Amino acid sequence: MNKATTYPVSARGPADHDVRDQIVAAATEHFSRYGYGKTTVSDLAKAIGFSKAYIYKFFESKQAIGEMICANCLREIETEIRAAVDEAERPPEKLRRMFKTAVEASMRLFFRDRKLYEIASSAASERWQAVVAYEERIQKLLQDILQEGRLTGDFERKTPIDETSMAIYLVMRPYLSPLLLQHSFEYTDEAPAQLSSLVLRSLSP
Amino acid sequence: MNKATTYPVSARGPADHDVRDQIVAAATEHFSRYGYGKTTVSDLAKAIGFSKAYIYKFFESKQAIGEMICANCLREIETEIRAAVDEAERPPEKLRRMFKTAVEASMRLFFRDRKLYEIASSAASERWQAVVAYEERIQKLLQDILQEGRLTGDFERKTPIDETSMAIYLVMRPYLSPLLLQHSFEYTDEAPAQLSSLVLRSLSP
Repeated sequence: MNKATTYPVSARGPADHDVRDQIVAAATEHFSRYGYGKTTVSDLAKAIGFSKAYIYKFFESKQAIGEMICANCLREIETEIRAAVDEAERPPEKLRRMFKTAVEASMRLFFRDRKLYEIASSAASERWQAVVAYEERIQKLLQDILQEGRLTGDFERKTPIDETSMAIYLVMRPYLSPLLLQHSFEYTDEAPAQLSSLVLRSLSP
Repeated sequence: MNKATTYPVSARGPADHDVRDQIVAAATEHFSRYGYGKTTVSDLAKAIGFSKAYIYKFFESKQAIGEMICANCLREIETEIRAAVDEAERPPEKLRRMFKTAVEASMRLFFRDRKLYEIASSAASERWQAVVAYEERIQKLLQDILQEGRLTGDFERKTPIDETSMAIYLVMRPYLSPLLLQHSFEYTDEAPAQLSSLVLRSLSP
């Protein structure tokens, strides 16, 4: 079965982004079963029934597919974090939820599937664009919560906000990056609450 | 040259601990050149000119030698940390020095020699006894500084000290363990000061 003939890239074919999504979905499934490192674009093409040339029309390399998988995974984590933050009323509780949900979602998404962890860890150690962008969005979310807490009077205002924000990000970072998180499994239950409390004590006006 | 005949284990031979030290020194040198993982006790025996049987009189396995090397390395880090802490007068400064020196000494000792890092990382991931004991001593030192700061009035006394102490340990941990530290090189210059400031804000009475 060669889907390259079934779905030609033509004006009447499916939209490009649909094909891309289809490749990414099939690749996610394939990588999660056989691993990312060992799989070649040829293996992938064979497995999902596309020609290799057809895949290359949409992705310039295996890493480009991995980047998309990684970006989806990070988006999913971020969506969960934002939902949890939005549920809370006051900034201190937002901060607690942010930390707790970040750890839970990261644990589930990076490690539910050991083989997909391979992609997450390559992405983190090679600083793929999706990772850099995700970290920036998380830092921005944190800074927004801090800013809000300064306005409501929940948080102190003496320390420059960039300093506060960076320091708190450093406290969270070991639980956000898959590379560090893998060495902290024994702490993931307790650490978010303990560290949130410490951070909130540091923010008290 | 077979030193087993030169240094027999007899009443008139060198003290056992001298021979142990000699094996450890030679093994440290050898591992740092050829790596820990790939070296066998036979290789080691050949390289340092002892018989394999003689080495086994002092160490039951390669790991036992690795444990001694690791314990020495951790002792060295701890000695530096204690010296830095002792130089400071007041508890807040002691805490800053503790963090700063812990990171500097760990960076130097775990990574000055990429091949010895192998031992440190095995030790950390397999939770060798020397590592567990080191972590306990560091936690104790931290708790002593906190206790002192409560007495001098530099630190708040409302939060249970075990809670404060554990949370601060969690903040430091990513910079103490070689497994986590290897993923934080870009932060090691700034993080100790930034995190110490955050911790001190959390401790303010």
